[in-house]
Amino acid sequence: MSKKLLSVVAVSVMFSGVAIAEEIKLSDAEMKKANQIYFDRCAGCHGMLRKGALGPWIRPEHHKGKKKEVPGTKELGTEALVNIIYNGTPGGMPGWGKSGELTKDEVELMAKYLQLPPVAPPEKSMADMKKTWKVEVPVDKRPKKPETDRNWKNYFGVVLRDVGKIAIIDGDKKEVVSVVPSGFATHILRSSADGRYMYAIGRDGKAEVIDLWMKKPQVVSEIRVCNDARSIDTSKYKGYEGKYAVVGCYWPPSIVTLDGKTLEPLKIVSTASYTYDTEEFHREARVASIVANHYKPQWIINVKETGQVWLYDYSDVNNPTIKMIEAERFLHDGGWDSTKRYFLVAANARNTICVVDAKEGKLVAKIPSGGTKPHPGRGANVNSKKYGPVWITGHIGSNDIVAIGTDPKGHPDNAWKVVKKIKLPGKGGGNLFVKTHPKCKYIFADRPVNPDRKLQTQFYVIDKNTLEVVKTIPIPEEYLKPAKTKDGKEVKARGPVHFEFNADGTEVWTSVWGNKLEPTPILVYDANTLKLKKVIKDPRIITPTGKFNVTNTMGDIY
Amino acid sequence: MSKKLLSVVAVSVMFSGVAIAEEIKLSDAEMKKANQIYFDRCAGCHGMLRKGALGPWIRPEHHKGKKKEVPGTKELGTEALVNIIYNGTPGGMPGWGKSGELTKDEVELMAKYLQLPPVAPPEKSMADMKKTWKVEVPVDKRPKKPETDRNWKNYFGVVLRDVGKIAIIDGDKKEVVSVVPSGFATHILRSSADGRYMYAIGRDGKAEVIDLWMKKPQVVSEIRVCNDARSIDTSKYKGYEGKYAVVGCYWPPSIVTLDGKTLEPLKIVSTASYTYDTEEFHREARVASIVANHYKPQWIINVKETGQVWLYDYSDVNNPTIKMIEAERFLHDGGWDSTKRYFLVAANARNTICVVDAKEGKLVAKIPSGGTKPHPGRGANVNSKKYGPVWITGHIGSNDIVAIGTDPKGHPDNAWKVVKKIKLPGKGGGNLFVKTHPKCKYIFADRPVNPDRKLQTQFYVIDKNTLEVVKTIPIPEEYLKPAKTKDGKEVKARGPVHFEFNADGTEVWTSVWGNKLEPTPILVYDANTLKLKKVIKDPRIITPTGKFNVTNTMGDIY
Repeated sequence: MSKKLLSVVAVSVMFSGVAIAEEIKLSDAEMKKANQIYFDRCAGCHGMLRKGALGPWIRPEHHKGKKKEVPGTKELGTEALVNIIYNGTPGGMPGWGKSGELTKDEVELMAKYLQLPPVAPPEKSMADMKKTWKVEVPVDKRPKKPETDRNWKNYFGVVLRDVGKIAIIDGDKKEVVSVVPSGFATHILRSSADGRYMYAIGRDGKAEVIDLWMKKPQVVSEIRVCNDARSIDTSKYKGYEGKYAVVGCYWPPSIVTLDGKTLEPLKIVSTASYTYDTEEFHREARVASIVANHYKPQWIINVKETGQVWLYDYSDVNNPTIKMIEAERFLHDGGWDSTKRYFLVAANARNTICVVDAKEGKLVAKIPSGGTKPHPGRGANVNSKKYGPVWITGHIGSNDIVAIGTDPKGHPDNAWKVVKKIKLPGKGGGNLFVKTHPKCKYIFADRPVNPDRKLQTQFYVIDKNTLEVVKTIPIPEEYLKPAKTKDGKEVKARGPVHFEFNADGTEVWTSVWGNKLEPTPILVYDANTLKLKKVIKDPRIITPTGKFNVTNTMGDIY
Repeated sequence: MSKKLLSVVAVSVMFSGVAIAEEIKLSDAEMKKANQIYFDRCAGCHGMLRKGALGPWIRPEHHKGKKKEVPGTKELGTEALVNIIYNGTPGGMPGWGKSGELTKDEVELMAKYLQLPPVAPPEKSMADMKKTWKVEVPVDKRPKKPETDRNWKNYFGVVLRDVGKIAIIDGDKKEVVSVVPSGFATHILRSSADGRYMYAIGRDGKAEVIDLWMKKPQVVSEIRVCNDARSIDTSKYKGYEGKYAVVGCYWPPSIVTLDGKTLEPLKIVSTASYTYDTEEFHREARVASIVANHYKPQWIINVKETGQVWLYDYSDVNNPTIKMIEAERFLHDGGWDSTKRYFLVAANARNTICVVDAKEGKLVAKIPSGGTKPHPGRGANVNSKKYGPVWITGHIGSNDIVAIGTDPKGHPDNAWKVVKKIKLPGKGGGNLFVKTHPKCKYIFADRPVNPDRKLQTQFYVIDKNTLEVVKTIPIPEEYLKPAKTKDGKEVKARGPVHFEFNADGTEVWTSVWGNKLEPTPILVYDANTLKLKKVIKDPRIITPTGKFNVTNTMGDIY
């Protein structure tokens, strides 16, 4: 877009009388940079069309919302916007300037950019996708059996978030077997039903599949299916194991089915539709998460903005059947109960956990989560002596780890309600993940987004029997040393984030959430004695976040 | 939109270097008028977003299509656009000026309007719809049994297209029982499974239900569900008879489920998705037609631009299940084979008839129709001695009435292919409808859009045994006399259009397609002797087009 045109567009807004406008001019280079920053930092919460999701409306024009009026960015003006972007807000907007993520110039650039109309985000057709599709190793050139002597079913895929890579680590020997390139800020890894293939999806919509049977695992196929994505999974129903992969896109909001081995794109379905409650059209109805149904040839697709759970039948791949179930807004992430019949998914704008019966194909409950912004990851399952089977989630916005009864037949009184609230020591929320393993007597909880440095750099151990916190484990100081930027500024690592067990459930792994400046370690604890057993440090392991053990991921064990 | 703003937008196009622009200014009143003309005359073929469907792309900017480049309207400029709009094109664009439908000033207005960016068409939420919902007669105030002595199951609903009304005519007595207001240019009437309620949908998206049990039938409920619509139907599966109605919208492109008795809106689902073949996102994926499946609680929904047939399961009304079947572009209208298992639908841009097996829920054939622009209406079914069961359609663009075998079990050699081509006398196409009744030995075909006046004002009788034209019946001259406009211009009526049988199949009705200036008659022929039996003339019967007999419509008899 030319500078001249943009200038005129801004003037046209002035003419239309919306505000007393200042003339905003951005050069092509500035626009390009601002677009990239917007995509990296802002789009996740505010949406590509800037109509808001977890964050508010930030378009130039005034918005008469259902509940309240929201001023347009033109009304706010550059100064106010700079202040918000630099310092953040109590409502949850990060202070991008204060934290050092954006320079002062970048903050000012974004304040101007937001007063211009949103650039129409690109569409992506099948032809566009195919141009980005690469099969690095054709299926017939891949190993016929594992070429490694290592116990590959105990491999861990570790997301190296900010460097756009994935480390494959041998869980037996704690050795880095391979580091492969990935999309930007990979959000999740999934396994094929047999565990052989590991799938990654970048925030930039780049999907890839890694072959773990190779002596040195590498990316064997890749494709960029969207401009923005968060989820990937594979077909796991009997007879379809590994046949298909599926990507859930943020933009364009869609579901893309791929061949499981080659990632050849096969089918695109739009998720743009009507919000389940007010029934308003939402162009940007993003796929928040996907899980594979074990009862049927279906994916369970959670559409954030519309609050719908789509049961997507992939058995006739070009002619899919979709049941559109009304649930709650905004759907985020979730996991299975221990029987894998019930899928529990967070609606984080409404502090609700929705329960989908995957066998019957219907919503069975909407449960007030008892906290603020539930964030289960996949959650954690416990067979409690007192309550029967329960599923556990934490919250980002409040100090509540809650257990929900999941056994309507055996324990009907406890089913689909919060039966126990667990408070972590100290104040405030900030939990992102809870995790357990059927063979482990503990549940582990992190707290990386709690503002208190001490609380943030510990993790918390909950006893499965009592459902009480029995231990708090601080990360040793030596692994939390601040890194230095080029201009000498010290930047601290966050605390431990995300847990994963090894295949037999005897170890729990967590990682120090560092920054791009320096490597940070993965810490391996004995899951019974809770002793730090091994520290995995490697110059290539930078910003390790999500960790996915092959056996646990392929079996949905948590 | 203010005049100033529009002016600036046009200038911005100039700045962006697309064309040497003239500055285009339209006043609010001009914009309003142009929007209305665009909606009435242009949107059907070019789409609300002007990206083209049956007609080409007509947006200001240049378009690099897959097959060819299409100049933007800014490139074409006012003079060229005036010429096209006034005179039409050989490609099928009507000459709106030449035909007198638009004045010279209106043509010029439209030539300017088309060089401005399309006005974003409005969205419609559930709240918007509810504001337009009226229950004139609550369900408990409606008759408990028929309050008329007339044989209401032989009523005809007749669309009075250009005056926005519907006439209810007693088919036994040939008397106008009631004339009720409707939406603009009602496209179709449908009946509830028991025949009592008649549903109408206007091009302006206004749906209404007429209660035929009343002494004088009247509209008992109405609602405006879209800005533009073409189709309505009801639930006909066992146990759901009359429970729901459904409207297929052109804009916003969507499926709206309504309560069958009150038209209370219950659920909106967007049809915006990806084209079945190139898999490109299409915001304006319009619902061309809907039929009710007799085998399952489903509607068969034909989405024009994406070329998909959606099997929409309404049994769980708030959580619908949709099978999205790949068919062909652009889907239009169609009908059942005689067993009501197979639905045959025209893809008029590809001269193809697609066959959906409603029992198995899948596409079973894509048949080259053998002509240009197939236009079946519902088609006509014949049990031919020679070919077995066949379904018949005509074409707008070529002189081909074709018979397609529909009995894969009994007559596999003839199934899903054109087994017979019937040429009408004289040259050129122009057929819109064919019609028969199981008890009648003839098929009737009209030809209202053939340019030849003589061919246009006749209809054609095909013998079911020989599948040959056995008679040509001209409309008596006295019913074709031109009407005079205020300024003395003579405007001719088109010939006969559309047929409908009475309940026992002994009469066939057609109507003279007049204009708003004067009433035109409905002609009733003896379906066996082919003699003109009765002429229904009434000062209120102006522009009669579609005619729908209650018994035949409720039973899908054709």
